[in-house]
Amino acid sequence: MVKNSLGRMIPEYFNGQLLSPYRDPFGHLPQGRLATRALRRVNPGERKLLGSLREAILAAELKDGMCISTHHHLRNGDTLLGAVVRELDAMGLRDIRIASSSIHPVHAELIPYIEKGVIGGFECGVNGPIGELVSRGELKCPIVVRTHGGRARAIISGQVQIDAAFIAAPCCDSYGNMNGAQGPSACGSLGYAHPDALYAKTVIAVTDNLVPYPATPISIPQTLVDYVVQVESLGDPQKIVSTTTRITRDPVGLQIAKYAAQVIEISGLLKDGFSFQTGSGGISLAVADQVKQKMRQQGIKGSFGCGGITGYFVDMLEEGLFQTLFDVQCFDLQAVASIGRNANHLEISADMYANPFNAGAVVNQLDCVILGATEVDINFNVNVNTESNGLLLHNTGGHSDTAAGAKLAIITAPSIRGRLPIVRDELTTVTTPGETIDVIITERGIAVNEQQGELKKELLRRKLPVKEIGALQQEIYAVTGRPRPLEFSDEVVALIEYRDGTIIDVVRKIKG
Amino acid sequence: MVKNSLGRMIPEYFNGQLLSPYRDPFGHLPQGRLATRALRRVNPGERKLLGSLREAILAAELKDGMCISTHHHLRNGDTLLGAVVRELDAMGLRDIRIASSSIHPVHAELIPYIEKGVIGGFECGVNGPIGELVSRGELKCPIVVRTHGGRARAIISGQVQIDAAFIAAPCCDSYGNMNGAQGPSACGSLGYAHPDALYAKTVIAVTDNLVPYPATPISIPQTLVDYVVQVESLGDPQKIVSTTTRITRDPVGLQIAKYAAQVIEISGLLKDGFSFQTGSGGISLAVADQVKQKMRQQGIKGSFGCGGITGYFVDMLEEGLFQTLFDVQCFDLQAVASIGRNANHLEISADMYANPFNAGAVVNQLDCVILGATEVDINFNVNVNTESNGLLLHNTGGHSDTAAGAKLAIITAPSIRGRLPIVRDELTTVTTPGETIDVIITERGIAVNEQQGELKKELLRRKLPVKEIGALQQEIYAVTGRPRPLEFSDEVVALIEYRDGTIIDVVRKIKG
Repeated sequence: MVKNSLGRMIPEYFNGQLLSPYRDPFGHLPQGRLATRALRRVNPGERKLLGSLREAILAAELKDGMCISTHHHLRNGDTLLGAVVRELDAMGLRDIRIASSSIHPVHAELIPYIEKGVIGGFECGVNGPIGELVSRGELKCPIVVRTHGGRARAIISGQVQIDAAFIAAPCCDSYGNMNGAQGPSACGSLGYAHPDALYAKTVIAVTDNLVPYPATPISIPQTLVDYVVQVESLGDPQKIVSTTTRITRDPVGLQIAKYAAQVIEISGLLKDGFSFQTGSGGISLAVADQVKQKMRQQGIKGSFGCGGITGYFVDMLEEGLFQTLFDVQCFDLQAVASIGRNANHLEISADMYANPFNAGAVVNQLDCVILGATEVDINFNVNVNTESNGLLLHNTGGHSDTAAGAKLAIITAPSIRGRLPIVRDELTTVTTPGETIDVIITERGIAVNEQQGELKKELLRRKLPVKEIGALQQEIYAVTGRPRPLEFSDEVVALIEYRDGTIIDVVRKIKG
Repeated sequence: MVKNSLGRMIPEYFNGQLLSPYRDPFGHLPQGRLATRALRRVNPGERKLLGSLREAILAAELKDGMCISTHHHLRNGDTLLGAVVRELDAMGLRDIRIASSSIHPVHAELIPYIEKGVIGGFECGVNGPIGELVSRGELKCPIVVRTHGGRARAIISGQVQIDAAFIAAPCCDSYGNMNGAQGPSACGSLGYAHPDALYAKTVIAVTDNLVPYPATPISIPQTLVDYVVQVESLGDPQKIVSTTTRITRDPVGLQIAKYAAQVIEISGLLKDGFSFQTGSGGISLAVADQVKQKMRQQGIKGSFGCGGITGYFVDMLEEGLFQTLFDVQCFDLQAVASIGRNANHLEISADMYANPFNAGAVVNQLDCVILGATEVDINFNVNVNTESNGLLLHNTGGHSDTAAGAKLAIITAPSIRGRLPIVRDELTTVTTPGETIDVIITERGIAVNEQQGELKKELLRRKLPVKEIGALQQEIYAVTGRPRPLEFSDEVVALIEYRDGTIIDVVRKIKG
């Protein structure tokens, strides 16, 4: 057990893997080389189309203890991962690791297969009940939570070796060219699946929309795809939208959004060439809306919007407020429709989006990102993985990646949620290091990190409610009281891996 | 010295490299793994823009004996390779191997640098004077001629390790995103440069058109590019067009084209979904024109045209005769204009176009290709590298790749050129194995390879002038006489590498 630089106790090993404790956001340099894989040869006349998932599993020669992946672009509408796991079970396979890009509440259907030993662990974060049960000690299943960029890094560096990638392909030809823009299960970008397609030992395209050769546009090309399987359905794209996708009407949220837009304007970044990312929550969208109005009023032409893309960003593209959208994931059906039709709405891979170990990801070019938090501390460290009840409920997504990349990383959050204070003495879990967070905005005031001294001065000059984060915390505690620390057992049930592969924190089983 | 399966004498070693003699077109299976390279880390705020080619050469830490590459999309208009070599010389570097995608007559400017020892060899075929001088023994410079697909294979398998790729980028931002569609040196597709960008140790984008971030569309992304250098000019795109690009008016050529179009029609391939490749020569274009008319008359909707793309194929795309163009290289400025504007005109990498060692290249899906020849023999083997005078004058291009991939590979050539017969007892050089050639068409008759027995019957039934190839040869010899064999010394000056990396032939120094 060693303390990392943020004071979190990190075990030496987890699930047999030697851990490297987190030190700082930018200093950890890669030592190794790009992953590799066996060369293949596919001669003219050879066919890739197989009759079923079972045939594909056989062709991939999957065995006990191996690792598979899917992508999560259909989010809570995905039915492929469940179908693959049921087939693995029916074939008697056990101890399979899941290295999907994310797991959603719909995948609660996997719980019986974890209990049965079909699934031996998750090489990815989990949203929803699986993490909750693991946190409570009711389910034994090691979890390694990675950022979107960190997952790409883990795959391209060979840290995670995927034996078979099952890629849901909403539009696919029989030679494996695919895109996500067309078909009954259209999900738009297939960005998270690109590293899998490049490095998995066997790549299987699974489609409910087999089209004549060539399927175009081509997101993932035939040169990377070993087999194609046709299924009835990949899932329900209506369920891509799983969070709020309307501007908040809550006055607290609107106040926070107003402050955030003011901070962005005062930062000096809001000018021609501005680049921006927000999530799809109600406050984020309210910030986007205010920024949009400021850009429109001031005649500002932005360069790009990126990340998970919503209809709000599509509108901004179409209005000329952005030149380009870099889309690793479509967050709603308006984004899905746009990516298939607008040449300036570009699909990018998770590697290009956020991997710290390439020649420069898109997040490095980002001016401003709006992010959320379940908790923050007075060093600006942020938790998005666990709730204050200690339960692992959320994947990291691009949180740490965009915070590290953006010139201005803003956390927006209500000061109190469910009677609990947002600013804590100690975080339940550290997801994103405070060094990479610039501003924390609540309805009670704005805390500015020390590296943004000039911005702080300017905000004060413009009479924004800037507060020292300690003072903000005390003000909130005066309402909520100081929360009682949670009690955890010693048992580590999940790792929180920072984007560079070091361990920023672990999740321990809760007591009681 | 061993005889390969086509009876060509192959030395054990060339230039220190152990050779593997050619055996058959499809049986050689890859043993190794995908190439790899050191992982990198580029943090936010780091810049890639350097002040000069010299700074880039220093940053790449180029040393004597290392290997560099450029791409040849500007063909005879390229000025970058010359500029890089002059700088290498000025910096005192020696024995540098050139692994460009092709060399053109303009690169005669490199000859003094070969003589001086700056250039130590070519890991690529050469069009024009360098090959001639090497064939004559007037220039010492080992040459390894590769097909377009074979070059991609050599790079992705690590056989050729490029230390620094200098990628001419007609449109580029300061973070390295680039395309070939825009700018004063627009050349369209950058398809041949993709493997270099993926696997070169250092990747340098060189541009005469630096645009604000992000340059879109993105052919090669920022994640692969280490440095960006701005130069005055990359060259002259007017000189992309270096061969005939008009339909031949020669009656012999027109007769050949007419036969070719009839053969395609009779083969049964000319139906909905038809896919097609031709070169840019006058006969090829005449075939394309006749095929176009047949498709139009019969209401046939083709699937794709591929390869080097000409305005003729662009017209066919725009007319709906093809659904898609797969473009590894634009052969004229009409193609350049189209790729930037038509979403169905897709840039593809050389890997996707023709590499035999991936999960299936585009050539594998090709119905019909029209190819040329300097010589053929009675086993349907084809020479495109040397002329009958023994001089190495031509690169292989996609010849062997498309012949291997296409269902119907047709050679079109006049029976007599410069008083020399096209059908020889023995080829000066074997480029493409006869097993992969289906039909040879001259104005004197059509020779059909034995694997196309059904087609032969049908051509005879339709009264086309089908002849046994031996008979056709004798008929031609009756006019030209049997040519005297050339005399060669024992010295091997160049390898002709088949697409799978085995050696199909060598070029020896001519005597006299």
